[in-house]
Formats: sequence, C-alpha cells, structure tokens
Amino acid sequence: MRDSSPGNGEFSIGMDLGGTNLRAAAITRDGRLLDSVYGKTGYTAGREAILSDMTEAIATLRERWGAKSLAGIGVAVPGFIHLREGVIGNSNNLAALENFPIRDELGQRLGAQIILENDANAAALGEKWIGAGRDVEDLVLLTLGTGIGGGIVANGKVLRGFVGMAGELGHITVMPQGNPCGCGNRGCLEKHASATAVTAMARLLGLGDALTAKQVYELAMNGNEKAHTIFLAIGEALGIALAMLVNTFNFPLYLLSGGMLGAWDLFAPGMIEEAKRRSFTLRTTNTRVERAALGNEAGLFGAARLAWL
Amino acid sequence: MRDSSPGNGEFSIGMDLGGTNLRAAAITRDGRLLDSVYGKTGYTAGREAILSDMTEAIATLRERWGAKSLAGIGVAVPGFIHLREGVIGNSNNLAALENFPIRDELGQRLGAQIILENDANAAALGEKWIGAGRDVEDLVLLTLGTGIGGGIVANGKVLRGFVGMAGELGHITVMPQGNPCGCGNRGCLEKHASATAVTAMARLLGLGDALTAKQVYELAMNGNEKAHTIFLAIGEALGIALAMLVNTFNFPLYLLSGGMLGAWDLFAPGMIEEAKRRSFTLRTTNTRVERAALGNEAGLFGAARLAWL
Repeated sequence: MRDSSPGNGEFSIGMDLGGTNLRAAAITRDGRLLDSVYGKTGYTAGREAILSDMTEAIATLRERWGAKSLAGIGVAVPGFIHLREGVIGNSNNLAALENFPIRDELGQRLGAQIILENDANAAALGEKWIGAGRDVEDLVLLTLGTGIGGGIVANGKVLRGFVGMAGELGHITVMPQGNPCGCGNRGCLEKHASATAVTAMARLLGLGDALTAKQVYELAMNGNEKAHTIFLAIGEALGIALAMLVNTFNFPLYLLSGGMLGAWDLFAPGMIEEAKRRSFTLRTTNTRVERAALGNEAGLFGAARLAWL
Repeated sequence: MRDSSPGNGEFSIGMDLGGTNLRAAAITRDGRLLDSVYGKTGYTAGREAILSDMTEAIATLRERWGAKSLAGIGVAVPGFIHLREGVIGNSNNLAALENFPIRDELGQRLGAQIILENDANAAALGEKWIGAGRDVEDLVLLTLGTGIGGGIVANGKVLRGFVGMAGELGHITVMPQGNPCGCGNRGCLEKHASATAVTAMARLLGLGDALTAKQVYELAMNGNEKAHTIFLAIGEALGIALAMLVNTFNFPLYLLSGGMLGAWDLFAPGMIEEAKRRSFTLRTTNTRVERAALGNEAGLFGAARLAWL
C-alpha cells in the first residue's frame, strides 16, 4: 500500500477502456494522479473476464487510497452509450459488453455508484480539466485512432444528448458518396480520416496490402508521392468536418488527439487550409485548432473528473 | 393608447428584422403578444432610415405599455453577429447595417440596453419558449427560406459561441464539390436546400428562367417529373445535414421552419429516409424531426424572450 491519504482529502477513480486493455487511476480533486492499475485481461477473454478485471482494478485503488475519501467512480468506454440505461449500445471494440447493463452490474459488484461515459467524451473532459483546454469552457475534441471519436464540452460539461450519444463525430458525413461505414452511413469522417482509412487507401493505391498507418507515414516522409497524397486526403476530410464544427459551434478551441497526431505535419496544413476555405467563421475569428495535450491519459482523467460534475 | 398595463406587471419588446421589413412586439412574461408595430421603411432606404424605423417602433411600444414595466429589448437580425461588439459582421439581407455598431447605436437612441441576436437563433428560442419545442430543453431549428439559418438551443438557452456565430447551419457542407456559396465554401446546405436552390435547379433543368419556388412546387404537384426531382434533391441535402446534426447533438427535437415548409410533403419523406440511413442515432432513438409551430412570429417571440434569459 502507498501513502494512505490523497493529501487534500478527496480523490476519485477514473477508468478508461482503451484500445486493447483497461486502466484505472486514483486522481485528486486538483488533477494529481496518485496511482494507477492496468487490467490483466484482453477484451477477447469475454464478458466475465472483463467485468472481473474492471471490478478488481477499481477495488484495488479504493482499498489503497481509502473508500472514505472516494468522491466517485467514472468509467469511460468506447461506443454509443445509452445513458439512462447505463448500457453500451454499439461498440466495435467491446462487443462482449454490448447491450449489457454494464453500469449497474459493475455498481453492484463494487457496492458503489458508477458514472458511465463515452471514451471520447471523457477525453474531451480531461483535456478541458487539466490539458490543452484548461483556459476555455467550450471545446470540441476529435480522437483520431483506428476509428474517430468526438467529444463536445459546453460550459465546462460534456454535451451528452438525451440518450448519451452526442458527439459521434466520427460518423458525420464528409463525402456523401464515400466509403460505406459499419454505422450504416457512407462517407463518415472515420472512413476517410482514421488510421484505418490510411491503410485502406494504401491498399487501393497499390502501396502494399499489409502496411500500418505508421509505415505509410514513413513512406510519405521518405518522398513517396502516393503515400503523401493519402495524408492530403486525410487533411481534406478533416478540414470539411472541422469547418462544419466551427460553423455549428463557434467554440474557441478544436482539439485533435490519438495515434494519427504523429502525422500532424503531413495532414494539418491541408486540413487548416480546407477548413478555412469552408468556414467564414474560422477565417474571421480567433479560433484555435490544436493538438491535445494529455495523450492516452485524457480519458482516464476525464473519467475521474465525472465524480465532481 | 391601449390597455395601460401588461397584466402580470412585466413585458418585454422583441424586434425581428425579417426578409423585407421589420416588426416589433410587446410580449408578456408568459408569452402573450400584447401589441405589435410594423416598420414603415424597406431595407433599401439605407442605414439612417432603418435605424429611425427601428427606434420609432420600439419607442412606440415602450410608450404605449409603460417603460417602468419593460424588462428588456431584444433585437433579432439576419447574418453573422459579432456578439461582444454588437455588430452584424456579414449579412446578405442587411448590407446597410454591416460592420456598424447597431446594438450600441440603437441603445443610445433609446436610452436603453439592447440584446442583439441572430434571427434564426431567436426563432429557435421562440419555438422553445411557446412553440413546437415547449416540452424540451434542447433543440435545433433550421429556417428554410431564400437562405437557410440555424438556431441551437441547449439547456433552454441559445448556443451562441464565443463571438456569437454558432448555429450557422446554412453553411455546413453537404456536397463537398457542390455549388459555390457567398461565404466562400462550396456545397453549403443553403445552396442545396433553400428556396433559392429550388429556383436555381429549375433553371438548370430547363423548367423556366423566372419560376418562383412556389411555381416549381405547383409543377411538381401537377406531376412534372423534373420539378419533383428537385424536391427529392432538397430532401437528400436536408437529410445529410440532419443526420450530421443528430450525430453531433443527440437532441430530442429538430425543427424546420420557413417558406419551404409549404413543400413539406414533397421533400420530407426523402429527407427522413436519407437522415435515417446516415444516422445510427436517429434510427435507434426516439428522436423527433418536426415542423416548427410559430411561423414568422418565432423570431419576434424569441427576441422578446432574451430579456428574461
């Protein structure tokens, strides 16, 4: 056991179910990470294994830091969340937990209330709390990974919508006749600007059938024209989406995060140019489009923050 | 002079600068229209004429109903509004007032504080107050006229953005390679789903060079295939935009208003179908897409409502 007090008397537990395994952290009210625990099981191990893993990680932190000082428990999960029911409606990464009352089950096992949130929403909240959005009350975050998530913070709080599905920005249409998406739409942002879109375009352009997005990036950096074109297309799709978001929200800050940030220099200039062309508001106001600051930890911090909102 | 008291002791004045002339109304706190005054001058008469007209209409109502009971004055104007400065930045309908400190000038002439708002934002607020959105706290309104405006109400208040330009939904991109727009973008919703888009398509399809949107509607109702196609295209563009808005906000209610509502039966079924195809959230939740209820008076009521928010 570590230091037996969180210092300022109160902490919360945030949990983030990331791409391949889970992580929980004890975080103080002023945003200090006290301690963190990684899950032991991959998501492919099935529902019961994941649930045990989640329960154990949270219980461990609660024991270490004291249940009496615990302000709350927030859990960030990927997918469309049915807020009222506390259920993950649809999630590519967590099929084992789909349509299962995860919030109530977890709450019962822990004898505590759980606050469920979408992972990108939690990341947006984390960035607002102690990341790149500290100085604003309103921001939009796009998480660019194998998929694309979105989180909207308005007046310092996550915009959740009436069933908790707000901010599904990976599924806004950027090309009406574009690539078909698992959500039923065509031309979703996610199908044209994620790491998966990079590898799909690489295949289509004959660069290779098994390249990772990182390898395509390296090809582009080494002067490969086709690979370079891919990142221009990514920038264009992101620019269309950004312009739409700026015209809709007129927020002061739009953040991008996720693995695709590594290719920022290749796609960002074209993205900004495209977005400016398409948004009078972006051209004429002091709107910022920036990289997020917390990396993979944004969701963890945001999940913990839910206890105090 | 009419009845000398607004009854419940308090009223506000709302003014709406509509398509061709202005109107002001005295409205009670519970949404009763006490009295209204129309402007005398067309907007082509120039800035001084418009300002005098505005001042006079408001002063008349204030005198009639008593300055002591006046809670505030709200003014709804078309265009991109710089909120902090109280200036209309860019407006197709009100060129004479562009980049002019309208809020402060009007305030000075009246010796009172003026609350400035975009006309579609005001209309959304009016619908939320006493119209089709009475039973919700969150809604999006699209005004479909010669142009397309947008208004977003979140937690019962207008979402304004950091300079007041939020909700410019007529300028979100629905066709990346679509028609060029005055805002600098291509494929704006406004260029593909407004009454102006109807007449432009009628020209392109050889239906006639000087048809009004209403005449194109009548042709379609009389079985003209080309005219019918136009409204299907309008529905498709609106469906793309609606899906985007539903995926972004997950609000319970999306309202449409404006002159184009007359053609609802022609474009709405295709619009809903397209939006459902493109939005998992719309397909799986109890989201409503409906006609607004207050017609031309929404902006007037919304402007008056600003005094109490």
